[in-house]
Amino acid sequence: MNNAIRATPQAIAAAREARAQIRAGFASPTAGMAPGMTQANMISLPADWAFDFLLYAQRNPQSCPVLDVIEAGGYRTPLAEGADIRSDIPRYRVWQHGTLAGEVTDATDLWEQHPDLVTFLIGCSFTFEAPLMAAGIEVRHITDGCNVPMYKTHRQCRPAGRLSGELVVSMRPVPASRISDAVMITARLPAVHGAPVHIGDPAQLGIGDLSRPDFGDAVRIEPGEIPVFWACGVTPQAAVMRSRVPFAISHAPGHMFITDIPDTAWQGG
Amino acid sequence: MNNAIRATPQAIAAAREARAQIRAGFASPTAGMAPGMTQANMISLPADWAFDFLLYAQRNPQSCPVLDVIEAGGYRTPLAEGADIRSDIPRYRVWQHGTLAGEVTDATDLWEQHPDLVTFLIGCSFTFEAPLMAAGIEVRHITDGCNVPMYKTHRQCRPAGRLSGELVVSMRPVPASRISDAVMITARLPAVHGAPVHIGDPAQLGIGDLSRPDFGDAVRIEPGEIPVFWACGVTPQAAVMRSRVPFAISHAPGHMFITDIPDTAWQGG
Repeated sequence: MNNAIRATPQAIAAAREARAQIRAGFASPTAGMAPGMTQANMISLPADWAFDFLLYAQRNPQSCPVLDVIEAGGYRTPLAEGADIRSDIPRYRVWQHGTLAGEVTDATDLWEQHPDLVTFLIGCSFTFEAPLMAAGIEVRHITDGCNVPMYKTHRQCRPAGRLSGELVVSMRPVPASRISDAVMITARLPAVHGAPVHIGDPAQLGIGDLSRPDFGDAVRIEPGEIPVFWACGVTPQAAVMRSRVPFAISHAPGHMFITDIPDTAWQGG
Repeated sequence: MNNAIRATPQAIAAAREARAQIRAGFASPTAGMAPGMTQANMISLPADWAFDFLLYAQRNPQSCPVLDVIEAGGYRTPLAEGADIRSDIPRYRVWQHGTLAGEVTDATDLWEQHPDLVTFLIGCSFTFEAPLMAAGIEVRHITDGCNVPMYKTHRQCRPAGRLSGELVVSMRPVPASRISDAVMITARLPAVHGAPVHIGDPAQLGIGDLSRPDFGDAVRIEPGEIPVFWACGVTPQAAVMRSRVPFAISHAPGHMFITDIPDTAWQGG
């Protein structure tokens, strides 16, 4: 992160207002809230699993770019002053032995029942969608008001300790004439997945049918557009599922943690 | 690391030959061995400390750039095929409760006595000295055939769990007219400490006397030269000392681990 780049007071106020609304009960996706401010994926694991997870992230930085780690039992982060990670996400998923056990809109009780949770905040590709749009590259799922399509691939991440899993990718159709620009724009943001991992042939990633994403919603692909795939922050959730981690809490897809850090702070890593 | 950049067969053969010599008893500094191949700092800690250490590295990436992590009990690394981290470093330091307890030239017995050691390979500024010299910037300690001067600073690293410590820096005098070039050249190599952390005023780092380094050897500063300071891979050793980690093994300063990865593979992170 480039610490020299700070958000404006107005932008920080918007992020705080968004978190206050969420804490007060707002429980919907966060797309479009506090525009220009970094939104993050969240996953919390028992301390016993924290090393394996941090190593998994270190070995797979394109899909698991770590923005911050909150130590065991903690719920504060320097990325968002005054925020409480237990209540400032609209919707949480609770995982038991790799299976979705339920969703909650406040996780404070769960923190009290599991006092050794280590929390990881992971970069989110929402951050690079604003610069894509600013360069005149349409982001289809935003145009169409749906969630980004995400796919499990047959590419395995590099395992770490007890954790293993496949790479999950998000897909955006890009006009062939703008692919080079899309690569350059996102390559400048390695902290939020960086350059695409694949362009053009879903079969090479083991994706059989683009109209049936594993997460999120399918989107239109117009003539002259090529599907472009980026590493996705759902990858760590896939590892938690596959590896049957005894207990974990994550954000629900699309229901992100809103920070006080402007998207532009991640340029150049 | 850019996996597309591979060493030539000759360069890999030179690295293997260097490791074979070391395994056979060579116990001196590695400067100049297998030129162009990445040399790494090494530190091994009990598994109980591994999360704190990896988090310390994640929070202080400029001084602790992680090149590879070898899981508990392991001694192989993909950075050097066939290498054995227990025997392929010329000289090891053994730390007990933060105090230097001795040096050995083979650590295989220690690995057997401490079967849960997690090993971290950390980037080393030796990697950026070749590109500096290729650009016509003299590296004084190489010219003079001594060790690079290293200094403890009063800048504290961001703590992680039980680990805390000061930033340690290495210093190279650079002609004022070449400082801009030195910054640009090293900034391209974030995996080996990247751009300087400070230029010009040792007092601002809390360094009182450049002629008395905390580690390594003092070097001449000629008229027209400015002292330039880079984050140093001795920083993690300083944290192990300060935090009184019960047991640790590290390389001895200047006695590095030689990998099969060319220095050029780290450009652009």
